[in-house]
Amino acid sequence: MYELGVVYRNIARTDSATADGLARYGSATVHEAMGRVGLLKPYMRPIYAGAQVSGTAVTVMLHPGDNWMMHVVAEQIRPGDIVVAAISAECTDGYFGDLLATSFMARGARALVIDAGVRDVKTLTGMGFPVWSRCISAKGTIKATLGSVNIPVVCAGQLVNPGDVIVADDDGVVCVPRALVAKTLEAAAAREANEGAKREKLAAGVLGLDMYDMRPALARAGLKYID
Amino acid sequence: MYELGVVYRNIARTDSATADGLARYGSATVHEAMGRVGLLKPYMRPIYAGAQVSGTAVTVMLHPGDNWMMHVVAEQIRPGDIVVAAISAECTDGYFGDLLATSFMARGARALVIDAGVRDVKTLTGMGFPVWSRCISAKGTIKATLGSVNIPVVCAGQLVNPGDVIVADDDGVVCVPRALVAKTLEAAAAREANEGAKREKLAAGVLGLDMYDMRPALARAGLKYID
Amino acid sequence: MYELGVVYRNIARTDSATADGLARYGSATVHEAMGRVGLLKPYMRPIYAGAQVSGTAVTVMLHPGDNWMMHVVAEQIRPGDIVVAAISAECTDGYFGDLLATSFMARGARALVIDAGVRDVKTLTGMGFPVWSRCISAKGTIKATLGSVNIPVVCAGQLVNPGDVIVADDDGVVCVPRALVAKTLEAAAAREANEGAKREKLAAGVLGLDMYDMRPALARAGLKYID
Amino acid sequence: MYELGVVYRNIARTDSATADGLARYGSATVHEAMGRVGLLKPYMRPIYAGAQVSGTAVTVMLHPGDNWMMHVVAEQIRPGDIVVAAISAECTDGYFGDLLATSFMARGARALVIDAGVRDVKTLTGMGFPVWSRCISAKGTIKATLGSVNIPVVCAGQLVNPGDVIVADDDGVVCVPRALVAKTLEAAAAREANEGAKREKLAAGVLGLDMYDMRPALARAGLKYID
Amino acid sequence: MYELGVVYRNIARTDSATADGLARYGSATVHEAMGRVGLLKPYMRPIYAGAQVSGTAVTVMLHPGDNWMMHVVAEQIRPGDIVVAAISAECTDGYFGDLLATSFMARGARALVIDAGVRDVKTLTGMGFPVWSRCISAKGTIKATLGSVNIPVVCAGQLVNPGDVIVADDDGVVCVPRALVAKTLEAAAAREANEGAKREKLAAGVLGLDMYDMRPALARAGLKYID
Amino acid sequence: MYELGVVYRNIARTDSATADGLARYGSATVHEAMGRVGLLKPYMRPIYAGAQVSGTAVTVMLHPGDNWMMHVVAEQIRPGDIVVAAISAECTDGYFGDLLATSFMARGARALVIDAGVRDVKTLTGMGFPVWSRCISAKGTIKATLGSVNIPVVCAGQLVNPGDVIVADDDGVVCVPRALVAKTLEAAAAREANEGAKREKLAAGVLGLDMYDMRPALARAGLKYID
Repeated sequence: MYELGVVYRNIARTDSATADGLARYGSATVHEAMGRVGLLKPYMRPIYAGAQVSGTAVTVMLHPGDNWMMHVVAEQIRPGDIVVAAISAECTDGYFGDLLATSFMARGARALVIDAGVRDVKTLTGMGFPVWSRCISAKGTIKATLGSVNIPVVCAGQLVNPGDVIVADDDGVVCVPRALVAKTLEAAAAREANEGAKREKLAAGVLGLDMYDMRPALARAGLKYID
Repeated sequence: MYELGVVYRNIARTDSATADGLARYGSATVHEAMGRVGLLKPYMRPIYAGAQVSGTAVTVMLHPGDNWMMHVVAEQIRPGDIVVAAISAECTDGYFGDLLATSFMARGARALVIDAGVRDVKTLTGMGFPVWSRCISAKGTIKATLGSVNIPVVCAGQLVNPGDVIVADDDGVVCVPRALVAKTLEAAAAREANEGAKREKLAAGVLGLDMYDMRPALARAGLKYID
Repeated sequence: MYELGVVYRNIARTDSATADGLARYGSATVHEAMGRVGLLKPYMRPIYAGAQVSGTAVTVMLHPGDNWMMHVVAEQIRPGDIVVAAISAECTDGYFGDLLATSFMARGARALVIDAGVRDVKTLTGMGFPVWSRCISAKGTIKATLGSVNIPVVCAGQLVNPGDVIVADDDGVVCVPRALVAKTLEAAAAREANEGAKREKLAAGVLGLDMYDMRPALARAGLKYID
Repeated sequence: MYELGVVYRNIARTDSATADGLARYGSATVHEAMGRVGLLKPYMRPIYAGAQVSGTAVTVMLHPGDNWMMHVVAEQIRPGDIVVAAISAECTDGYFGDLLATSFMARGARALVIDAGVRDVKTLTGMGFPVWSRCISAKGTIKATLGSVNIPVVCAGQLVNPGDVIVADDDGVVCVPRALVAKTLEAAAAREANEGAKREKLAAGVLGLDMYDMRPALARAGLKYID
Repeated sequence: MYELGVVYRNIARTDSATADGLARYGSATVHEAMGRVGLLKPYMRPIYAGAQVSGTAVTVMLHPGDNWMMHVVAEQIRPGDIVVAAISAECTDGYFGDLLATSFMARGARALVIDAGVRDVKTLTGMGFPVWSRCISAKGTIKATLGSVNIPVVCAGQLVNPGDVIVADDDGVVCVPRALVAKTLEAAAAREANEGAKREKLAAGVLGLDMYDMRPALARAGLKYID
Repeated sequence: MYELGVVYRNIARTDSATADGLARYGSATVHEAMGRVGLLKPYMRPIYAGAQVSGTAVTVMLHPGDNWMMHVVAEQIRPGDIVVAAISAECTDGYFGDLLATSFMARGARALVIDAGVRDVKTLTGMGFPVWSRCISAKGTIKATLGSVNIPVVCAGQLVNPGDVIVADDDGVVCVPRALVAKTLEAAAAREANEGAKREKLAAGVLGLDMYDMRPALARAGLKYID
């Protein structure tokens, strides 16, 4: 976050099998599996509905109105990566469009997560390249100031280190630190294993009050029913 | 709004035929029929386009980051109800997901209106359970503090009493107090009866200026045309 | 912006062939072709995805909660126009619905751009009448105060003169002043002529760093690569 | 909230001794004494620092950009009242300035709480008439549409009934329903009785952890200390 | 708004006696005198309370995160000017601090109005140089991109032409077009001439309802009093 | 950021002489001295004007609506510390008031920086305990969920590690990582050494254009002067 004009070429990525494994659980389950942490702020929204991905974070820190470093980060992308872009101050400009997306896809990127604007969203949707962003904006940028690539960044309120795993879907974006990915994958799988049975019971009319045995705790807390 | 830890089990619901009758008119017509009042703030948005419902309000007041009472309110749902959830302070957490939706649907709920976040929106969309919310967020909640069920609540700036009728569609959400439902249904029907004829005239090129005879009033107000 | 209660009937519109020619380039390319200016703020969003239009601006200035002048502006619409509506103070009310849209379409309007709310969005989507707005709201308006038609207005932060060209798509809305339309059309075409070749190269894995020869400038600026 | 064009002249006010008694405790203590409810949203801010008041609510519901009813409500003010103004849709216009303040003060009003804008704030500060508002704005309003006086209103997210007690200071604004004022006054006094002793202990270096005996509960919840 | 890299050195300023004359009326009265138009959005706030100024606008258009043109505009300042700074996209950076303020004051500037951030506010307050801004931010800027000086700009939603008169105080900022200054000055004086008498009557307990003879119009509109 | 229910008792603090040395330069100069990084978002505002402090960060991560950990962090404060409080999701509740401030001051804390609300601001102002916060709110909190103390946190968009130095004043809040404090102090001193001479020149009417020799670069960039 504090180094400027630096590109780290060798980062320790989470191994791809583990990183890939998180996609199916989605951001809500993964965030719960981590202990209810790791989420980017909810203003980060997908440009189209339905995409659900996971991948290893390649990070970039840019300045307001300047997307020069997007070209620098493109070279550092490896197949399975998700680019995470932070801006050094709040900005809504459109840092990314269909040409950069073509380049990112050619390098094997799975998605972009950017705390700023994106444009050419109709074309990006057609290309199937998902972006989670603060907003959509046609506003162009210049190429004048150095930022950095693959340093720790804060994106939408969340610290992301290069090599961490990003999971993103219609509910939002979560970052899983590299050291916690294996444990989180396990916990997510365990969480989901239970969900099928629970869903069936609830569909049959069993109440969460009974299924989770909440009535005694509610009574102890003083809940009163009035007829 | 001021009672905590209380669940009212017997509420006076608007009779279901009248409550159901409002859905077809939509939120804009119903709000006009009431005298341009009753709307929740426009930040309340549906998680998917196209749903249009009406139903009787079952209310719940929760605290920031705590969805315990969602399980308590589930038990109070009857077929045809819409759950209206208010939070005691601004919060964007995801209070509701596919498991609770399964339970709500099993009880006969038609929709959720919540002044906070919702998650599992892809699954909810697949299930056809519509939610109007302040935002979408994967952020989970705890179960630690009592709120209340079926007390009057302020949701997105609007007072909602249990048993009132909620009408929601792509334009927003409106609350019709129980005592005004019959009169509002009539007024909405009357409004719509006129609309077909008006639409035809306008489609044929007749101007609103002439159809509504606005020219004299505009002239009196001093409108000047300059060639 | 300062004249009240005035309707200019004869405005100098950009010729329709030139105005129509800009639609295919979209808001991002057109804004770049003008020198990165002319955009309305990014909170202006389409009510449905996929519409892409251009047309000549007919402007209207209204007051908060009052849509009287929408009927006055309807009469001034000619085929190929886009109505641009500004409000004299921030307002989220729903100024426009399906009846006005029917009238606007009958007059030949292609779209509405409004710095306030719109309603009946499901019907408008079905009619294929695109609107770019600040928000969606069922809130109705009154008809009590004069505004003006075809005066210069500031809409979502951008000055729009009657007769200017509006280009709008999923990325946003841009205004091209009448005097600059021909030059902008040329510049946009030139920009796009290059894009095909660039896209092919990028898709083949060539980096922007090399295609745009950025490496020397980055080195001069002090960029350091660390292995 | 739903009656339009109505002025209730006779409202049941909280008796003035009790209403006056709440001022000294301030909004935070009063809100805690009620069970952590009753607050207006925190965007409501005083136009100058240091004012601390309580009084009986006289309510008014107005429309966006229209302050006609401010003159109607002036007549209903009695000494010791605080006027609470709600708007039927979000609006930032300046509904109130020094002339109305002169009138309100002449009638005995102690303050204004308004979910919109206020102007002439330098003069109001000089007059010592406190206002809590959503914003400050020089924007004027018209006088064209009826609202209502002394109906229940939702102001900044909080239901206020005429005759309730309003307590406002630098921390915000709280509404105490008439039926709860006596009990709340007692509870607030009890809360504050304890605070002196607590403050002394804390100032002497005793930790809240010990004073409130939190250590066992923290340990049970699993808190770990790492050296 | 559309010319880039241009500095107009000779602008037609409102004559200084007239420009100076508006300060005493304040933004609210001046805006009313113009017909309730001309205000910048209410998020524009003074960095300290109590300043009240008028002066001739010198305008500057800058880019996000880049304050190069602030030095260019400094040279164009003449005694009695107020600098009006617009940014080509939303930005909260601190474009202006005590060094630039020293330079602006040395040139005779009376104030800065900027749709972005400002810093060194404690020093600026000590210097008595008033600034109206979108926010306060310590964030620095670069000097890399050309904007323009003395072109028409949109600042906080309002069109400002070089030479127009700016009036700013605790209530906000208003722009009076050069052609309307004389007329506006007259209207403002007329407005204020009446205010003293009105204030006296209101202080004596006369109601606005009677002083403005509103009762018949309210009755015609259908206002009902209920005892 | 990811460890829950953990309190680190031994953190490596920046030595106090160096930490104390940064206060006099203020947030803007320190942020520039670091290379224009390190700032918290500009919505962080002081509860009263004029405070200017630096100190070593003691961090705490809390949950929405729950201030339990504020008591836990109090015990970890040493003289010269500034408490930095982050919340796991956006929240505006009032986490901190005069009792906690009494305790913090008794432990030697110099200030609180909190990405949420604060209350009792009149008393805090009287006590001279400065707080930089997202908002002011009387809303109380509960004590039910564990967070952590002295882990890395993201506060208002900025990563803060325990032991880092916080500098805060009317312009905002900046975090200087422990490893960079000495270098930053030097750079800040160097920056300020120059400012006196510059200020004198500018006050004498020398333009920044000349003092910084900007004219050639502006000309090369294509700036045109038009008479």
